[in-house]
Amino acid sequence: MKHTLSVLVQNESGVLSSLSELFSGRGYNIESLTVAPTIDNEYSRVTIVTSGDEKVIEQICKQLHRLIYTLKVAEIFPENSVTRELVLLKVTAKDEDRSEILRIAEIFEAKIVDVSPKTYTLQIVGDQSKVQSIIELLRPVGIKEIVRSGLVAITKESQFMVNGK
Amino acid sequence: MKHTLSVLVQNESGVLSSLSELFSGRGYNIESLTVAPTIDNEYSRVTIVTSGDEKVIEQICKQLHRLIYTLKVAEIFPENSVTRELVLLKVTAKDEDRSEILRIAEIFEAKIVDVSPKTYTLQIVGDQSKVQSIIELLRPVGIKEIVRSGLVAITKESQFMVNGK
Repeated sequence: MKHTLSVLVQNESGVLSSLSELFSGRGYNIESLTVAPTIDNEYSRVTIVTSGDEKVIEQICKQLHRLIYTLKVAEIFPENSVTRELVLLKVTAKDEDRSEILRIAEIFEAKIVDVSPKTYTLQIVGDQSKVQSIIELLRPVGIKEIVRSGLVAITKESQFMVNGK
Repeated sequence: MKHTLSVLVQNESGVLSSLSELFSGRGYNIESLTVAPTIDNEYSRVTIVTSGDEKVIEQICKQLHRLIYTLKVAEIFPENSVTRELVLLKVTAKDEDRSEILRIAEIFEAKIVDVSPKTYTLQIVGDQSKVQSIIELLRPVGIKEIVRSGLVAITKESQFMVNGK
């Protein structure tokens, strides 16, 4: 089972290495990780997608709390958060496949960000299921390259979802 | 001067910690980092934004090459790549500020992904200058929370840019 953890840390050299050592040393999996500054440059936010049962996740959270640079650890639940991933996807654009690629792009509100005689590059933003769907649909066309940001997440203030597909 | 490095690595436990140790041990800065699987689950792509002069970047690239998990290291240059970042931004939405927030969102093609009586949450995708501009424009309104993916980048096949603002 996948879990998303959001960790607020001091923006110090050494934070990322102690955090990733914590995972590799104990054999915890990191599926994706993003780290970038917050609005206050003194702090960074790390978003980690990991897997494990409830007990493992509880252990990970406890150990993340113990790191000296950690200010806050929160598990992000899909029902009270907006989770998104950014994907840049380069596909082979044979003459006979182009309209199908454009149709898929339109359905998923993907943007064409680069076009060459042989390739289209798409920019896609969505939750994990949307991203997975477009990858599966474009796989037969020929995916040449994929660059994924990993998941980012923010807590919702509302009880409902806007544009939430 | 900022530089973006794209590193293809084996998807093994321990990769991220040896990579981040390389940076912290030698005092190299990591501004943002993303790591996520490629289309082949055996490999992950790490995108790192770092700073330093040409000599420092050359050293970093050399040392990244030496890591046993590394398959490929490339510096990404803005002129031959598409670089994007995903940002989720929660702002205070006072009655008198709402139309201005929506105007800014429209200009920057930001999507409103959550609305509560007191807040709007925006999803923004753009290069670093676009992201920085919208942050500066929304700062006076009151930014409550920001979650950034860090930069991701893909090489361009064409010599021109589509939708490249």
